[in-house]
Amino acid sequence: MQLDDGPWIHQMNWKAIRDYLSHSDIALVPVGATEQHGDHTPLMVDTGWAIAVAEGAARETNVLVTPPMHVGWSPHHLAYPGALTLRPETLTAMLVDVCESLIYHGFKKIVLVNGNRISNLPPMEIAAAKVRFSTGAYVSLIDVGLIARQEVSRICTVGENGHGGDSETSFMLHWKPELVDMTRAVKGHSGGSGPFATMPMPCEPPFDVNVLSVRPTAEEYGRASAPEGIGGDATLATAEKGKLVLEAIVRNTAIHINDIRGKTVSVRRPAIPI
Amino acid sequence: MQLDDGPWIHQMNWKAIRDYLSHSDIALVPVGATEQHGDHTPLMVDTGWAIAVAEGAARETNVLVTPPMHVGWSPHHLAYPGALTLRPETLTAMLVDVCESLIYHGFKKIVLVNGNRISNLPPMEIAAAKVRFSTGAYVSLIDVGLIARQEVSRICTVGENGHGGDSETSFMLHWKPELVDMTRAVKGHSGGSGPFATMPMPCEPPFDVNVLSVRPTAEEYGRASAPEGIGGDATLATAEKGKLVLEAIVRNTAIHINDIRGKTVSVRRPAIPI
Amino acid sequence: MQLDDGPWIHQMNWKAIRDYLSHSDIALVPVGATEQHGDHTPLMVDTGWAIAVAEGAARETNVLVTPPMHVGWSPHHLAYPGALTLRPETLTAMLVDVCESLIYHGFKKIVLVNGNRISNLPPMEIAAAKVRFSTGAYVSLIDVGLIARQEVSRICTVGENGHGGDSETSFMLHWKPELVDMTRAVKGHSGGSGPFATMPMPCEPPFDVNVLSVRPTAEEYGRASAPEGIGGDATLATAEKGKLVLEAIVRNTAIHINDIRGKTVSVRRPAIPI
Amino acid sequence: MQLDDGPWIHQMNWKAIRDYLSHSDIALVPVGATEQHGDHTPLMVDTGWAIAVAEGAARETNVLVTPPMHVGWSPHHLAYPGALTLRPETLTAMLVDVCESLIYHGFKKIVLVNGNRISNLPPMEIAAAKVRFSTGAYVSLIDVGLIARQEVSRICTVGENGHGGDSETSFMLHWKPELVDMTRAVKGHSGGSGPFATMPMPCEPPFDVNVLSVRPTAEEYGRASAPEGIGGDATLATAEKGKLVLEAIVRNTAIHINDIRGKTVSVRRPAIPI
Amino acid sequence: MQLDDGPWIHQMNWKAIRDYLSHSDIALVPVGATEQHGDHTPLMVDTGWAIAVAEGAARETNVLVTPPMHVGWSPHHLAYPGALTLRPETLTAMLVDVCESLIYHGFKKIVLVNGNRISNLPPMEIAAAKVRFSTGAYVSLIDVGLIARQEVSRICTVGENGHGGDSETSFMLHWKPELVDMTRAVKGHSGGSGPFATMPMPCEPPFDVNVLSVRPTAEEYGRASAPEGIGGDATLATAEKGKLVLEAIVRNTAIHINDIRGKTVSVRRPAIPI
Amino acid sequence: MQLDDGPWIHQMNWKAIRDYLSHSDIALVPVGATEQHGDHTPLMVDTGWAIAVAEGAARETNVLVTPPMHVGWSPHHLAYPGALTLRPETLTAMLVDVCESLIYHGFKKIVLVNGNRISNLPPMEIAAAKVRFSTGAYVSLIDVGLIARQEVSRICTVGENGHGGDSETSFMLHWKPELVDMTRAVKGHSGGSGPFATMPMPCEPPFDVNVLSVRPTAEEYGRASAPEGIGGDATLATAEKGKLVLEAIVRNTAIHINDIRGKTVSVRRPAIPI
Repeated sequence: MQLDDGPWIHQMNWKAIRDYLSHSDIALVPVGATEQHGDHTPLMVDTGWAIAVAEGAARETNVLVTPPMHVGWSPHHLAYPGALTLRPETLTAMLVDVCESLIYHGFKKIVLVNGNRISNLPPMEIAAAKVRFSTGAYVSLIDVGLIARQEVSRICTVGENGHGGDSETSFMLHWKPELVDMTRAVKGHSGGSGPFATMPMPCEPPFDVNVLSVRPTAEEYGRASAPEGIGGDATLATAEKGKLVLEAIVRNTAIHINDIRGKTVSVRRPAIPI
Repeated sequence: MQLDDGPWIHQMNWKAIRDYLSHSDIALVPVGATEQHGDHTPLMVDTGWAIAVAEGAARETNVLVTPPMHVGWSPHHLAYPGALTLRPETLTAMLVDVCESLIYHGFKKIVLVNGNRISNLPPMEIAAAKVRFSTGAYVSLIDVGLIARQEVSRICTVGENGHGGDSETSFMLHWKPELVDMTRAVKGHSGGSGPFATMPMPCEPPFDVNVLSVRPTAEEYGRASAPEGIGGDATLATAEKGKLVLEAIVRNTAIHINDIRGKTVSVRRPAIPI
Repeated sequence: MQLDDGPWIHQMNWKAIRDYLSHSDIALVPVGATEQHGDHTPLMVDTGWAIAVAEGAARETNVLVTPPMHVGWSPHHLAYPGALTLRPETLTAMLVDVCESLIYHGFKKIVLVNGNRISNLPPMEIAAAKVRFSTGAYVSLIDVGLIARQEVSRICTVGENGHGGDSETSFMLHWKPELVDMTRAVKGHSGGSGPFATMPMPCEPPFDVNVLSVRPTAEEYGRASAPEGIGGDATLATAEKGKLVLEAIVRNTAIHINDIRGKTVSVRRPAIPI
Repeated sequence: MQLDDGPWIHQMNWKAIRDYLSHSDIALVPVGATEQHGDHTPLMVDTGWAIAVAEGAARETNVLVTPPMHVGWSPHHLAYPGALTLRPETLTAMLVDVCESLIYHGFKKIVLVNGNRISNLPPMEIAAAKVRFSTGAYVSLIDVGLIARQEVSRICTVGENGHGGDSETSFMLHWKPELVDMTRAVKGHSGGSGPFATMPMPCEPPFDVNVLSVRPTAEEYGRASAPEGIGGDATLATAEKGKLVLEAIVRNTAIHINDIRGKTVSVRRPAIPI
Repeated sequence: MQLDDGPWIHQMNWKAIRDYLSHSDIALVPVGATEQHGDHTPLMVDTGWAIAVAEGAARETNVLVTPPMHVGWSPHHLAYPGALTLRPETLTAMLVDVCESLIYHGFKKIVLVNGNRISNLPPMEIAAAKVRFSTGAYVSLIDVGLIARQEVSRICTVGENGHGGDSETSFMLHWKPELVDMTRAVKGHSGGSGPFATMPMPCEPPFDVNVLSVRPTAEEYGRASAPEGIGGDATLATAEKGKLVLEAIVRNTAIHINDIRGKTVSVRRPAIPI
Repeated sequence: MQLDDGPWIHQMNWKAIRDYLSHSDIALVPVGATEQHGDHTPLMVDTGWAIAVAEGAARETNVLVTPPMHVGWSPHHLAYPGALTLRPETLTAMLVDVCESLIYHGFKKIVLVNGNRISNLPPMEIAAAKVRFSTGAYVSLIDVGLIARQEVSRICTVGENGHGGDSETSFMLHWKPELVDMTRAVKGHSGGSGPFATMPMPCEPPFDVNVLSVRPTAEEYGRASAPEGIGGDATLATAEKGKLVLEAIVRNTAIHINDIRGKTVSVRRPAIPI
C-alpha cells in the first residue's frame, strides 16, 4: 500500500509533509463557495473552480494544497435555497488561522486560490494582508475570474460569462459532467442598470468601464437573477471550452507560482493559533 | 444528464433543495480536522470519519448533508508538520454562520457530526447552544467516538483505540485503503500519567474512571506521542473491523436522526449572516 | 491583630503573597454559577461546591485560592427567576484575564475548580487551553461532578444525584445547613428521553452509555424540570452524606495538586491584561 | 430550617426571587477589585466596600443584591503580587451579561455599586449605557468614593484618604477588623506631580482643581506608591470613623434607591445572553 | 510654493515629519463629536473645541497635531437629527490604531484632546490605558471642559455653561462666528433631578457635590433638553468671553505639554496596526 | 448671522437637517487617508480627494455630506513617517456606526466616497454590505480612482498616474496649491514586477490585464517606492489638468447620485449604535 504524495495535504502523512518542507515552502489554499448556479449545475461550482485550479497548478509546479474551504462570503445568494455564507470576519479569521498554521510549520509562501470571483475578495484580501504584516510570509490571492480573463474572453462568448453562464457551465461539463444537466441550461439576464458597472472588477470585456461598487442584497439579487439564478448564456457551454478555460487558468496560476518560487522572504514564526 | 439528488447539498441544485425542504427539515454538518494520524494514515482521518458517518447516516435516513469542514480545533497537533487548526472562536463562528444559513432556508433540525472526537467539542457545543437559543432550531452534536463507544469497544481491542490506533486505522482500511500503508503501522504509547484520566470523555473502557481535563500543549503532545504520533496499536487494524465500526456509528447516528424527525420545533428565522 | 495567611488571596496582603511565591507556584480558581437548585436550596449551590472544594483542597496542600467567580454559563437556567449567566466568550475571557494576572505574578500552575458540572466546561476548557498555549503555564480543570464520581456514586443513591438532588442537597446540609429547608425538598424528574444520553459526561452510573450532546434551551429545560427545577431525589439527602461527598472530592483534588507540585514548567510571562 | 430571604440573591431560592419580582424591580450589583491595599489590609478592600455598601443599602430599602464581582480593572496594581485584573472589555461584557440576565427576569432598575473608585468607572459606565440603550432599563452607577465624598471629607482627614489610607483603613477596622493589622499601618506618599490633578474625579478636597486624565502604568504606579503601596495616612484610621463613613455611603446609596423606586421605565426584554 | 510646516500632520509632507521626529516626540490627537448644539450653533461645536485647542496649544509649544476625529460617543444625542455616534469600542479601537501608528513612527508622548467633554471620556480613557500598557508610551487625556474649569467658571456665568450654553456659544462666536446665529439663541433647561448630580465630573461649580453616574438614553435626553437641545443660557454669550475661554484652555493645555516635554519614557515599538 | 445650510452636516444645525430629511434621504460619507504622497504634496491628498469630490457632487445635487474621515487602511504607508492607519475591522466598524446613525435619522441612501483608491476598498465594501443587509438602506461606494478612470486617462498621461503622480499632484495644484511645492516634484518608479498586475483594479490603462492581488508589506512598499514614495511622474502635473480631473469625477459622482435619487428602498430602522 502507498500513502498519497500530494498535492493534497490531507491525503498525505506528516512525514511526507516534513520531507516536502525540507526543500520547498509553497502551499495553495483553495477557497470556494456553496451557492446556486442555476438549475443545471450544482452549488459547488465555485468550490470546484478552486479545487480544480489549485490541484492543476499544484501538479504542474509540485507544490502542496490544503483541503478546500467550501463556504465563502455569499450573503446575496441566500435568495436561493441551499446557499451557505460565512460572515466576512469569519472567513477572514478562518484564513488567518489556516495560514498561521502553515507558516508555523515552515511554509513561507501561500497562494490563496479563490473560486468565488469577487464575492470573496474583500475578506480574503484582508486575511492576506494581516498574515503578511504579522509574519512576513508572502501571501498572494489568485481569483479564477481574473487571472486569465483575457484568455477566457477569447475562449467563451463575451457577455455570456456571468454567474452560471458560458464559462462556468463549460468548466463543469469538463470537470464534473455527471453534475450537469444541459437540458435545464438557459440564457439568463445580462445584468446592468444605471450608468456605471456596479462590480468594480469585470471578469470579461468591457474592462475599461467606469466602475463603482454596490453589493446587492439577497432581495435585489433574487429579483435581478430570477427565475433561474444565472447570468449569461449557459446553453453555449461545451466541455471543450471548459477544458481550454481551465487550462488557461491553471497555466497562469502555475506561472505565478513559479514566479515566486525563488523569492526570498524573511518570516517571523507565528504562535500556534489559539 | 442528471444532477445529483443528494445527500450532499453542494452536489445538488437549488431546486432540488427547495423540493427537499417542502417535506423535510433536517441537515447534517460534518466537521473534521486536518492533523497527523501516524506514519500510516493521512491527515484527513477525522474529516474522513465525519464524511463517512454523515454520508452513511444521511443515505439511511434520506436527509441532506452540507459540504464537509476540513479544519477543526487541533492546536496540540501542530507538533507535527501539516496539521491545521482554527482558533476555537473561529470554529464556533463558522458553525454558527453555516447553521444560520441553513435555518434561514427552512432547515429546523441540524445534527453536527464531529469526526475529531473530543478535541472539537468545546467550540462545537458553544456553537450549537448559541444557535439553539437564538433561533429555537434543534441542534445536536454527534461525536464519532462517543455515539457508539459500546459497540466500538466490542469490535476493536480495548486499550488500543487511541489516536491513529486500532479503530481509526481499521476505519481507514475500510473507507480509503489507498491512503493507508500498513507496513508503517506501529503500536503507539498508551498515554496515562498521574492518578486521573485527563480527557474527561473516554471513548473506550474504562468508562467509570474519575476524570479531569488537561489539554496538552503542542510540546507536551509531541513528547507524549513520539516518535510516530499515535496512541494505541495500529497493527491490529483490519478492514473488516473498520466496516463494522463504521456501520455501528452510522446506525446509531441514523437512530438519532429518526428519533428527532417528528420533533416539533418553533423556529425564529435568523437574519442572513453578515 | 493579624492578617489572614490564606488560602484566600483576597484576605491576604501583598507581602504574604510575595512570600508564598518565593517557595510555591500553584493557585486554585473556583468558578461556580448562580442558578436555581429547587425550592429547598439557594442559587449558590454551584459556587458553594467551588468554594468548599477549593478551600478544602488548598488547606490540605497549602496552596492559595483566588476569590470565587459566582457566575458561569447557565443560559437554560434562566427558565427560573434569579439565575445569572455569562455568554461563553465572557466566561472564557474572564478566566484568561485572571490566569494571566496570576502568571504575571509568578504562579506557574493553575487549577480551575468548576462547581457547575459540565455546564461550564466548554468555555472553561477553551480558557485553559488558551492560557496553556500562550504562556506555557500548567492549567488543569477539576469538575466537582467528575473528579470523584466513583466515590459519590457509592455514597449517594445512584440515579438520584441530578441537579439539586441527593448529592447536592447533602453537600449543602453539611456546608451551609442554614440555607437549606428540607421541608421543601422533593423528588424531581429523572430526565432521559430518546435512545442516547444527551449529556456527554455522566456524573453517576451508568457511565458506559453511548452519548451525544444536546444542550437544552431555557424553554426545554423549564418544561423538563417543572415544577421545582430539580433532578434526582432531594429527600434522601443527609448532612453525613454531604460530609463524605465533600471529603472525597477534596481528597481527589488534593491528590491532583500534589501530583503537579513538582512538575517543571517553562513559562513565558504574559503582558498585564489590558 | 429556613432559606435566607435576602438581600443576597445567591442565598435565596428561586421562588423567593419570583415573589420579590411580583412587587419590586430593583437589584444592586456590587463590583470590587482584588488589589493590594498596603501591608496592613487585605486585597479585598474594594470588594469589601462594594459588599458592605450594597448589603447595607439593600437592607435599608428592601431590595436584592447579586453575588459580588471580585475582579475589576486594576492593571496598574499588578505592580504588587496578587492583584488580579480583567481587561476593560471583559468587565464591560461581564456586567452586560449579568444585567441582561436580571432584566430578562423582570428587574427594571439596576444600581451598579462600585467599590474600586474611579479605576473601574470607564468599563462600568460603558456597560451601563449599553444596557440602558438596548433594553430601556434604568441603570445607574454608585461609586463608594463619590456618593458621599462630602461626608467622608468631614469624617476623615482631608489629604490622607488615598488608596489604603485613612478612610479605607477605617472602613476595614469597622467591617473586618480581623483582616487588619494596624501595627503595619504607615503613612504613604500623597501623590501629586505636575500642575494638574491627573485623576479627573477627586474623592476628597480640593474638588475644584483643574484636572486631566493620566492612568499610570504598573511601573509608574509601583514607583509612585513604593514601598508599601498606599496613599494617605493609614495610621489615622479608627473603627469609629469607619462606621461613620460606611453609614454615610450606605445612607446616600439608600437615598438614591428610594429616589428611583417609583420611576416608570419601559423595558424591552432582552434575549438570554448566549 | 511651500508645504505647510505644521502643526497639522496631514498638511505636511513626510520629510517634514521625519525632521520633526529627529528632535521632538509629542503629538496631539483632537477628538470631537458631531451632535446638535441647539438652533444657533452647528453640530461641529465639540470638534471645533478639539481643533481650536489642539491647534492653539500646538502653536504655542511647537508640537504636531493629527487630523481631527469628527465622531465621538454621543448616543443620547441621536434624539436630534444629524448626530453621529460611534460605538464605544469603535472609538477605543480608532484611537488605539492612531496612537500605535504614531508610536511606530517614533512619537513617544501623545496628548488626546477631547472636545466632547465627559461623553467621550470612558472609551478614550480605555484607549489611553491600552496604549500606555502595551507600548510604554506616555498618553494623557485633556478634556476641554475640565482642564480650565476654574478659569471658565470665572469668565462665564456659573450655572449657564451647559451643552450649547454660555461658554460653548461664546467659543463659537469667537472661533467661527459665521456658523452662529444669535437670533436663535435661547436659555435652555438647567437639568438637575434627584438628590445627586448624575454627571460625575462637573465642568462648573458646584464642584463639591456628591455624584453618581447615570448616562441618559436618547429618549430621556430628548425630553430633558426639549425643545432646543441646549442646557444653560446661550443668550449670555459674547465673542470676547469666547476668546478668553479658549485662551485659558489653550494655555493650560500648553502648560501640560511643556510639563511632559522632558519626561523620559521607554517605548516598545508596536507592530503596524493590521 | 446665518448658519450654514450645507452640504456639510457638521456646519449645519439640527433643524436644518430635520428640514432636509423632510424632502430628501441621501447622504455622502467622505473617507480619505493620512499617508505620504511624496516630497511635494502633503499627507492629506486622499482625504482631499474625498472632501473635494463629496463637496462638489453634493453641491451639484443638493445632498448632504458628513464630516470627513481622515484615516483609512494604509498599513504599507507606515514605511514613511506620519502615515496613520486603522485596522481594517476598525474602519469597517467606524463606517457601520456612522451609517447606522444616519439611517436612524431617516437617511435611506448613503454614498461612501473613497479618496484612498483601492487601499480602503475591502473594509469599506464589507461595511457597505453589512449596512445594506441589516437595514435595507441603499449604500454604494464611489472610488475616486475608478468612477472616472476613462476621463482621467484622457486628461493625464497614462502610466504616470500612480501614487502622488500626475493626476494626484494636478488635483492638489488645483484644490490646495498652497500645500504643493512643485520644486520637489519628481518622477517616481512605475511599479511592475512579475507577469501579472498585482493590484486587481487598475485606475488607468491597460485595463485589460490579467490580475491578481498582492498587498505589499511596509518593507516592500518602502523599497519599491524609494526614495520619494511616489509612483508616476509628478512633474507633469498642472492645475488645469487637476481642475478637469476633479470636474470629471464630480460629474460622474453626481450622475450616480441623481440615478439613485428616485430609487425606492424599504428601510428597517436600526437601533442607535451602542
